[in-house]
Amino acid sequence: MRAIWAELVGTFCLVFFAVGAAVYGIDGEAIGFVGVAFAFGLVLFALAYAVGPVSGCHVNPAVTLGALLARRVDIGTAVGYWIAQFAGGIIAAALLKFMTTGGDVTDQTGALGSNDYGATVNLTGAIVIETLLTFLLVFTVLAVTGKKGATPAAGAAIGLVLAIIHLVGLPLTGTSVNPARSLGPALFAGGAPLEHVWVFIVAPLLGGALGAAAQLWMYGREPEPDDTDVQTSSAL
Amino acid sequence: MRAIWAELVGTFCLVFFAVGAAVYGIDGEAIGFVGVAFAFGLVLFALAYAVGPVSGCHVNPAVTLGALLARRVDIGTAVGYWIAQFAGGIIAAALLKFMTTGGDVTDQTGALGSNDYGATVNLTGAIVIETLLTFLLVFTVLAVTGKKGATPAAGAAIGLVLAIIHLVGLPLTGTSVNPARSLGPALFAGGAPLEHVWVFIVAPLLGGALGAAAQLWMYGREPEPDDTDVQTSSAL
Amino acid sequence: MRAIWAELVGTFCLVFFAVGAAVYGIDGEAIGFVGVAFAFGLVLFALAYAVGPVSGCHVNPAVTLGALLARRVDIGTAVGYWIAQFAGGIIAAALLKFMTTGGDVTDQTGALGSNDYGATVNLTGAIVIETLLTFLLVFTVLAVTGKKGATPAAGAAIGLVLAIIHLVGLPLTGTSVNPARSLGPALFAGGAPLEHVWVFIVAPLLGGALGAAAQLWMYGREPEPDDTDVQTSSAL
Amino acid sequence: MRAIWAELVGTFCLVFFAVGAAVYGIDGEAIGFVGVAFAFGLVLFALAYAVGPVSGCHVNPAVTLGALLARRVDIGTAVGYWIAQFAGGIIAAALLKFMTTGGDVTDQTGALGSNDYGATVNLTGAIVIETLLTFLLVFTVLAVTGKKGATPAAGAAIGLVLAIIHLVGLPLTGTSVNPARSLGPALFAGGAPLEHVWVFIVAPLLGGALGAAAQLWMYGREPEPDDTDVQTSSAL
Repeated sequence: MRAIWAELVGTFCLVFFAVGAAVYGIDGEAIGFVGVAFAFGLVLFALAYAVGPVSGCHVNPAVTLGALLARRVDIGTAVGYWIAQFAGGIIAAALLKFMTTGGDVTDQTGALGSNDYGATVNLTGAIVIETLLTFLLVFTVLAVTGKKGATPAAGAAIGLVLAIIHLVGLPLTGTSVNPARSLGPALFAGGAPLEHVWVFIVAPLLGGALGAAAQLWMYGREPEPDDTDVQTSSAL
Repeated sequence: MRAIWAELVGTFCLVFFAVGAAVYGIDGEAIGFVGVAFAFGLVLFALAYAVGPVSGCHVNPAVTLGALLARRVDIGTAVGYWIAQFAGGIIAAALLKFMTTGGDVTDQTGALGSNDYGATVNLTGAIVIETLLTFLLVFTVLAVTGKKGATPAAGAAIGLVLAIIHLVGLPLTGTSVNPARSLGPALFAGGAPLEHVWVFIVAPLLGGALGAAAQLWMYGREPEPDDTDVQTSSAL
Repeated sequence: MRAIWAELVGTFCLVFFAVGAAVYGIDGEAIGFVGVAFAFGLVLFALAYAVGPVSGCHVNPAVTLGALLARRVDIGTAVGYWIAQFAGGIIAAALLKFMTTGGDVTDQTGALGSNDYGATVNLTGAIVIETLLTFLLVFTVLAVTGKKGATPAAGAAIGLVLAIIHLVGLPLTGTSVNPARSLGPALFAGGAPLEHVWVFIVAPLLGGALGAAAQLWMYGREPEPDDTDVQTSSAL
Repeated sequence: MRAIWAELVGTFCLVFFAVGAAVYGIDGEAIGFVGVAFAFGLVLFALAYAVGPVSGCHVNPAVTLGALLARRVDIGTAVGYWIAQFAGGIIAAALLKFMTTGGDVTDQTGALGSNDYGATVNLTGAIVIETLLTFLLVFTVLAVTGKKGATPAAGAAIGLVLAIIHLVGLPLTGTSVNPARSLGPALFAGGAPLEHVWVFIVAPLLGGALGAAAQLWMYGREPEPDDTDVQTSSAL
């Protein structure tokens, strides 16, 4: 049960802090795209070490789908994680909304840091880029975790791959690769971001499934979860 | 006793170098917000490895409060650390002040890198953001230290979480999350920063307490400090 | 055989994501040179941990040449790797091309992120800089891999040396140091980049050979590949 | 003897690549101060893993002085290192000079990346900042190396502390903290940088001595070099 809460807290942190970095500072005079990309990467870097030992630090429904397909977690755990992740993202977005009203902060993204397409990439391009970026994320996460001999650098690799993913995708879709990161802000932004949010749920899940497939094909199926596996649900 | 000195030297370094990076270079033509955020993160990264083995490298009264509540240090150690941390921050601020007078350096922050609110966030928002950012810091620090099996990446995680914390908070309050980092510069800046400095003492301490509570709840109370614990006061 | 596929997938990822970061965002209003440099560095950082255990993560014909000369791989493996790397780069470039047409994305580099000289450096300078930058890459890669006792930080060092290499070379040639990274985009860009692409094949290979020579001279020839060697072809 | 050559090659790489990053790209439209700071940090990060096992990767006369005072190396080794470091820096500066003439590259620093004071900091301020920045460097280097149990993150800490040091010092003196990095470019730049170069030799050496003193006082004198010590001269 603590793992479920860890996913909720973790996803809350990812969305409140990293999407928040965009909301408060994406203007190039502030932290710009590079700053936002590192905000996503470094908060995940920290969370991987902070909540990883409890839940595996998926904090992303696409990662959980990948872990499920790669038999790292069972379906019960996955469903629990999904609920926690979406809840964490929605709570974070509500607090971001509060910051722009009760906290008197200007929203530099104009839409609470929600994802969208149309301005710099069309629907086809958005699906391609989100699918491939999530493929890279999930393939990397599965490759560096859940194996005997995973190095202490696993959390660094996971965090920093999210940073590069944002360097690539920020100018196009704002980078989702995470349905929970997209749904929360879209609910509060409304309008086009909410209408288009299905793209940022479907494409990341597709990418996650492809990442799991590539992982299984390249590394082979593991016999069974081992007890040093940070992706395991043993903490539940 | 060496741990007390390590905290003083460490906090001096954090404030003199990282706040100094803002004083000399926060202008976007120089290093900008991204540069300042990495200055805070990377100096703590280095200090975690350089003075961590001696004192645990809290260099922050909110971290020490968290460690106290999580029973990683005793009250005597905590008081010693707090005195050392505030002293280190004040000495660093004095030297920063000297650089802008005797060193003929222009202060690009206009207030010796002190924290404040009002321009881009109101008082409520400042309290919320400082509390939550410090929660993330202290939760992460406690999670990656003081446990058997802490990885070599602990210092990296601690440093880089401070970098993301600054990416989020710099455009709003300038990011405190550390009463010792705030008090020194405020004393020399005077005016509004000094009047408002209580916010940057109270909110980080509140956040630190919440971080400790979350850590204890999520990981459970540890039986007793172990001798490989970098948070231990055994070096005193 | 999985190692061959790992090289193809890895090189595809390097070119599609990192060259893509330039195509979508090299404009200073987006991610700029610093963002592109970190895109190259961090995607290699992640790939080093994600596909390194399978193929050694060369994803670069100059690295494979260095590994061949340092007797880390045999000629059969090297040829297989080279084919996979060029194939991966070409497929990635084709998809980048698709993004700018079917995806409606503006190519901010004007030439699909291909390398060239003439604007800020002449032919002589381009050869010098590409040779020396590749020397640094291959020397570093060979030094941190393939030895008993290689630390968990090997992937970090390999990724981050590619980031600094791009910080140096981006303003001059756009930084190749990798014939597979150069050939794909040049094929689709045509014109001067294609005419000049030989420079970005020859100079990196020369630099790779020099890196291997320096490595052998400084560390001595290793007796034989050991089974923990991530550069080994044992996974083939 | 290989350690001497490692120091020469390492210092050449540091100066040619990192000072080169400034020469080619310090203009904010290119990589800016942040890019240059990371160029210094990341090339040292890589070199720490690449030549560290051979020579300890001082690549800096102030670090060698600190190592000498902390009894990590003997005087014979130190003198050899110093000669190699200055030679490496001078060769690198000569090649940088060639790039701006034979390579047709514009020198964006106007003085081959040499250090100076007067524009944004006076002589007193320059001495204070260079001394303290070098103190931080040498204290950190000595703390994370040469002790049993040094973590795999030592090279990361050493590289990244150099990055933060440059974030602080670039807007003021251009950051020396390394006499070999300063002498080479000053010789080819001539004028004020050459006249003032003594500051960037004396202050870093003073800072290095202070760093060694702090290290000995905080950690105590080590009984004798151990054979896993990357600072040892055993490879000579």
